[in-house]
Amino acid sequence: MEVLTVCLNPALDREFVVDNFKIDKLNIVPNEKNKMSPGGKGVNVAVILSNYGVKSVVTGFLGGYVGNVLLSELRKKSSLITTSFMRINDETRENIAIVDTVNHTLTEINSEGPRVNEEDIKKFIKRFEVLVQKVKVVVISGSVPKGVPNNIYGELTKIAKKYNKTVFWEARDEIITESIKIAYPDVLKYDMRRSEKVLGNILNTEQEYTQAAKEFVKQGVKLTILSYKTVYDFVANEDGVWKFSPKIQIDHSYLLGSGDTFVAAMVYANLKNKCCIDMARYGYAAAVAKTSYLGKEPPSVEQIEEFLGHITTERVE
Amino acid sequence: MEVLTVCLNPALDREFVVDNFKIDKLNIVPNEKNKMSPGGKGVNVAVILSNYGVKSVVTGFLGGYVGNVLLSELRKKSSLITTSFMRINDETRENIAIVDTVNHTLTEINSEGPRVNEEDIKKFIKRFEVLVQKVKVVVISGSVPKGVPNNIYGELTKIAKKYNKTVFWEARDEIITESIKIAYPDVLKYDMRRSEKVLGNILNTEQEYTQAAKEFVKQGVKLTILSYKTVYDFVANEDGVWKFSPKIQIDHSYLLGSGDTFVAAMVYANLKNKCCIDMARYGYAAAVAKTSYLGKEPPSVEQIEEFLGHITTERVE
Repeated sequence: MEVLTVCLNPALDREFVVDNFKIDKLNIVPNEKNKMSPGGKGVNVAVILSNYGVKSVVTGFLGGYVGNVLLSELRKKSSLITTSFMRINDETRENIAIVDTVNHTLTEINSEGPRVNEEDIKKFIKRFEVLVQKVKVVVISGSVPKGVPNNIYGELTKIAKKYNKTVFWEARDEIITESIKIAYPDVLKYDMRRSEKVLGNILNTEQEYTQAAKEFVKQGVKLTILSYKTVYDFVANEDGVWKFSPKIQIDHSYLLGSGDTFVAAMVYANLKNKCCIDMARYGYAAAVAKTSYLGKEPPSVEQIEEFLGHITTERVE
Repeated sequence: MEVLTVCLNPALDREFVVDNFKIDKLNIVPNEKNKMSPGGKGVNVAVILSNYGVKSVVTGFLGGYVGNVLLSELRKKSSLITTSFMRINDETRENIAIVDTVNHTLTEINSEGPRVNEEDIKKFIKRFEVLVQKVKVVVISGSVPKGVPNNIYGELTKIAKKYNKTVFWEARDEIITESIKIAYPDVLKYDMRRSEKVLGNILNTEQEYTQAAKEFVKQGVKLTILSYKTVYDFVANEDGVWKFSPKIQIDHSYLLGSGDTFVAAMVYANLKNKCCIDMARYGYAAAVAKTSYLGKEPPSVEQIEEFLGHITTERVE
């Protein structure tokens, strides 16, 4: 096993294509337009890694009927993925997307998600310590369910560091802010899809992004990636700070899943002994490549290598 | 085992209460407002019978993840219900109801339902012949999935008659029209919720309802029930024809599930040796009682007996 991906709050993603979807009416979903797939950022990373031939074990909290379906669907995805979820009583999240291709609407109905109790969190941390010793790299990505403290990324990273593992995070500001009080990851990718906040402050200028990225490196993060105006990234390591830009036009509607592709491609590059800024370049090229294809399929290794030619990595400090 | 209930096309009924439900937005369902229950008319009849202490075995076609959830939820309902479904490859129907209590809308998203192949139909009929010998009464109720011919009620009834069982049907016109070419049930209740058609003809006058009900009795049905203008029924047996009316005001929004209550209460009355028009009276009183309560809960035996005083059964022929 090469990678442990932690998905604390997995979800079953369901898609119903209902043309002319209407409120207060009976709408029928044709069978061929009723799809489901395992989701949650950590789960997505494991699935993308399996496309690159990388073995991973996925852990996190899973429960109920929805959890059972997610598990069956995830196991179908690839024999390179094994699972070691902690069972909880509550139902795992179910995210329903109703796509209307006539009126061009996307109506989402998400469940609130489970609550995890303290006993289950303790058991999970013990399980994590067993699993982490078997891998080279740990990826912790995505939201935390109710009941789980925001500093759990830090708790898990402290354990991973005890065994000298390389740790990747992709998370939102409230998780990062609390977790870095306990430990820093090797690679920090900010999930800024809904907020421009870093450590509680809204960033505006390129200068502020540069400073924020540098600050994490000063604290011990080896590589920091802050997305900027959706399609750009500020990337910092101990050698300096870079601004990444695409050379091609990016269709914003294709951005779904590009963050997970970014992380998975960096992990793949890391396992192939790419280091530092080259690892980030590889992830960014993958993310840009992802935006040129509709759907959940990640780009192939060949496509990523091609897209290394379609990005600019300009040194800003 | 006293009753075999046949539910050829069961469904998992799901209810999400989403206040201010909006198209093209992210809507969150609070956990306590996310409910599911086993459904399909035959399944509902078995559940109601279990409330009256009547043991039943439920059969039909069941498949996929949704089928598994339905089975678990049905088994939770009562130890008086046993199941003997025929497993199919396709997913069982999932009916999602999005209830908005602010804007007073009910938005339904139903799956198209499974397709059953010929091989599975043959196996099911064999299984039915084994099951039917163990019971006194057979109830066949509700729609048929794709692939299953509309005359299947007739096929099953022919087998049940070989073993001298009492057979109840509740179905729509297209099923009844095809099935009576093979065999007649003892008790025939027309499901006229979406059409006023009987044997392909639209009925208008009370006279036409009376004639149609009599005609079935002439052909061998012991008791025929045709609903009329939603809250009335024309009931015929070999002694004559009656018009049933409620003495109380019926709120149409409470009619959900009253047909299944009607059938289950008639079966209960039959097992208690009530005969003929008294059995129909008992069913009608139960259906009227059902409309005075919100939700899926059927009325108790005491409530039914009380409601026998709240109905009028006027002989018309």
